[in-house]
Amino acid sequence: MRALVFDKQLELREVPYPILNTGEALLKIRVAGICNTDLEIMRGYKGFSGILGHEFVAEIVDGVPDKIGQRVVGEINVSCGNCDFCRRQIPSQCRHRSAIGIFDHDGAFAEYLTLPIENLHAVPDSISDEQAVFTEPLAAACQILRQVHIQPNDKVIVIGAGKLGLLCAQVIKLTGADLSVIVRHDRQIQLLEKWGIRAVYRDELNNARSQFIIDCTGAESGFADALDLVEPQGTIVLKSTYEGLPQIDLTRIAVEEITVVGSRCGSFVTALRYLEHRLIDVQGMIDGQYSLEDGLRAMDLASQKGILKVLLKV
Amino acid sequence: MRALVFDKQLELREVPYPILNTGEALLKIRVAGICNTDLEIMRGYKGFSGILGHEFVAEIVDGVPDKIGQRVVGEINVSCGNCDFCRRQIPSQCRHRSAIGIFDHDGAFAEYLTLPIENLHAVPDSISDEQAVFTEPLAAACQILRQVHIQPNDKVIVIGAGKLGLLCAQVIKLTGADLSVIVRHDRQIQLLEKWGIRAVYRDELNNARSQFIIDCTGAESGFADALDLVEPQGTIVLKSTYEGLPQIDLTRIAVEEITVVGSRCGSFVTALRYLEHRLIDVQGMIDGQYSLEDGLRAMDLASQKGILKVLLKV
Repeated sequence: MRALVFDKQLELREVPYPILNTGEALLKIRVAGICNTDLEIMRGYKGFSGILGHEFVAEIVDGVPDKIGQRVVGEINVSCGNCDFCRRQIPSQCRHRSAIGIFDHDGAFAEYLTLPIENLHAVPDSISDEQAVFTEPLAAACQILRQVHIQPNDKVIVIGAGKLGLLCAQVIKLTGADLSVIVRHDRQIQLLEKWGIRAVYRDELNNARSQFIIDCTGAESGFADALDLVEPQGTIVLKSTYEGLPQIDLTRIAVEEITVVGSRCGSFVTALRYLEHRLIDVQGMIDGQYSLEDGLRAMDLASQKGILKVLLKV
Repeated sequence: MRALVFDKQLELREVPYPILNTGEALLKIRVAGICNTDLEIMRGYKGFSGILGHEFVAEIVDGVPDKIGQRVVGEINVSCGNCDFCRRQIPSQCRHRSAIGIFDHDGAFAEYLTLPIENLHAVPDSISDEQAVFTEPLAAACQILRQVHIQPNDKVIVIGAGKLGLLCAQVIKLTGADLSVIVRHDRQIQLLEKWGIRAVYRDELNNARSQFIIDCTGAESGFADALDLVEPQGTIVLKSTYEGLPQIDLTRIAVEEITVVGSRCGSFVTALRYLEHRLIDVQGMIDGQYSLEDGLRAMDLASQKGILKVLLKV
């Protein structure tokens, strides 16, 4: 089968079909999405080599006899089922986990993928492939609301209006909180205005402080902004991985009693419900659709500043 | 009156009596305690100059006619009473606050001090001066339990068994949690063993991970240890100020969904209750008692490695 393989560089290759083990489904990929993590892996993150990709919608073609043809999305963490985290129903932190397209498991930029059956969620007919492929990053945005309790009288600032930041902003808007999103260019403003969300440039905020800051920048400067913008006793949520080891004002965190919450994968059930109820607009975030054969061009486009979601149609 | 004044260097000086304003009490200091923050101020922290000291027990001598002679301890944050934090009953984060002996307000290493009446707490007769002077740092240790919910089946590691770390350890022991304290020398082991608390050297812990880590080190290496020792989805509590801007693995915080909680001043009511009920041993932590005149010698002793609390008798 054809697959986009990263091994020091990205190539479209002919590779063997994946082996179907007991408890797994064989999936035929329909659409996959390019995430910033894919771009970071190509810059060395996690030292991964193999088939890239972890955002996808697919069709079951083998392994689950009564569900052949079912459209599904799949959770990216492949867990052991036996460790203390799995037993506490937190498979995303399994001690022996792999993650598709990120470490120790091939990913979804390919014709086929195998995945444990318990990782799969059926996609309702009312959700298109182009919408369903956003389930994984939308779930990550939803994780914020599982971790912190944002109320309508809270002020929230999202820093970093990229792919994930825009999903986080849409999810937080649903709380009724007073939300601002820090933007860098007009394209972001147009999208946010369409969604009824306040877009601001960093220097417009001055000393306005908020109870909750969502840092989607993955940059040392983004975290420094978060510390400048958070209220004493407020909360900073980290949604991204950061390059290197940022220098952080830990004294300010201690003295102002700030809480920093790391936030990663979230509930696919919640994300699918949001999509089904048309509460989140993902269509407006698609900036390109390519065939798997054009994967390298798709990656090039995805890595350009200001470009949002680029999809691969397999 | 005599006072220990820090102005680039520490000196015993004759200074004017403090001016008593409406709503304040004039306090005659009985005993004051030297804290690491005092030592940090002498190395430049907060750029403070004035009378040092924020841990004390005193006697009301003016300003509250019906309470003359009452022994009191006092909260260190002098707040405005009008800002949003004061109105939310969080005077420790008041937007216009000063802090005695730390910024914008003279401290307690002096014969007399004025402080707003609402900052004062009466000391029960059963608590000695030498115990009462620990109220402020013990309250800071108690703040941990107001911020995070530690249960008997949790594992907790305290890093840094100095003055504050040993108080934190004693407070956390009261939760019934499985507690270990990382030590550096035998003196700490003897104290902890007396209190029935497990003392370990860092290299004895290997890969043992805990739900809660209390970092009392104020050092970049202490926070790095905390990240190595905390469980995924666990919590690190910061109890100290840090020198400079430590380099931090924010990616790990995000991916392992760790929570970092800044923690500062706490409830004097709780601390006084602990002392009254003999739940915390502070007597064993006193390593020296000096007169105010011998303040420079007291400071010298307090700054030596391994020395715990040094008191000034005024």
